[in-house]
Parts: sequence; C-alpha cells; structure tokens
Amino acid sequence: MRLLDDIIGKEILDSSANILGKVKDIEIDTASNRIDSIIITKSSKGGLTNKIGSSKPSEEIIPFDRIAKIGDKIILKEELNFQY
Amino acid sequence: MRLLDDIIGKEILDSSANILGKVKDIEIDTASNRIDSIIITKSSKGGLTNKIGSSKPSEEIIPFDRIAKIGDKIILKEELNFQY
Repeated sequence: MRLLDDIIGKEILDSSANILGKVKDIEIDTASNRIDSIIITKSSKGGLTNKIGSSKPSEEIIPFDRIAKIGDKIILKEELNFQY
Repeated sequence: MRLLDDIIGKEILDSSANILGKVKDIEIDTASNRIDSIIITKSSKGGLTNKIGSSKPSEEIIPFDRIAKIGDKIILKEELNFQY
C-alpha cells in the first residue's frame, strides 16, 4: 500500500462511523522503520476546542496502532480514553 | 519525521553522491506497520533503459533498508548488487 496514493487525503472514521477528518500527513520513525502516527486535519464540524485559540485548521495526531481498517475510508478501533 | 513535509520530493543520492531521482511515494506493509520501500522517479539524465520502452517517467523501487541517511538529501548505502 502506498502512502501518498492510498492513504493521504482519505477520510478517517471513528469506531462509531463518524467522520473525524482527513489524513494530512504521516509521521514515521526512520530509526525503527515504523509508522508512528497519522496526522489528520479535523473536520470543520469539530467542537468547542476548534473554535477557540487557533485560527488555522487544527490537526490531531492519532497513533498508527489505533487504525482498525484501511479501505476506501480509514476506520479506527474503539476509543480507549487514554491521554497522548 | 513527516512523510509529506520531510520526505516526498527529496533528492536521492547513491553512495557515490550521484543523483538517482526524487522520492515519489513510500510503500508500507500495513500488516506489520513497517516501511517497505521508497518509490523514486528517476532523474531524466538516466541511461539507455530510460530511453526505450516507456514514454512516461519511469519509477524505481528501493528497499527502505538501503537508505543510509535522511537529511536535506537522502543518501543510499553502498550498492550490494543483489537482485530485487
């Protein structure tokens, strides 16, 4: 699977099938050859935190191991409510 | 290190410091969460093989473990002459 062709720009859905945003970039760890996380631009519907503090579209970092499926959309696993 | 910001579009140099091309995409294995290879578009200077057979810019796949350094340029390790 190719990052630019197949992943960048895809919509991310949470485990309840709601749109979180789109994949903006991917963070990789070149030492371990692994993908750390995906960076998403949040959907403009976003809550209060989107409306205060920042004028640019906010980004969110999601650890790569939270991804459940990558198809036409990317679906995340159930949220575990830990802090990152 | 971010894919889109820091890697895509960078020039690739071989171990003799000659330009091979630019990073076009990265191939990942989503099962193991590892980076397999980088896909480069070959520099237009390329040899005979570039001039016959194909009218579109040719791409080449380079295993990720052949990368020695990623800085302003990406430098490959010494070529080992094995076939992939």
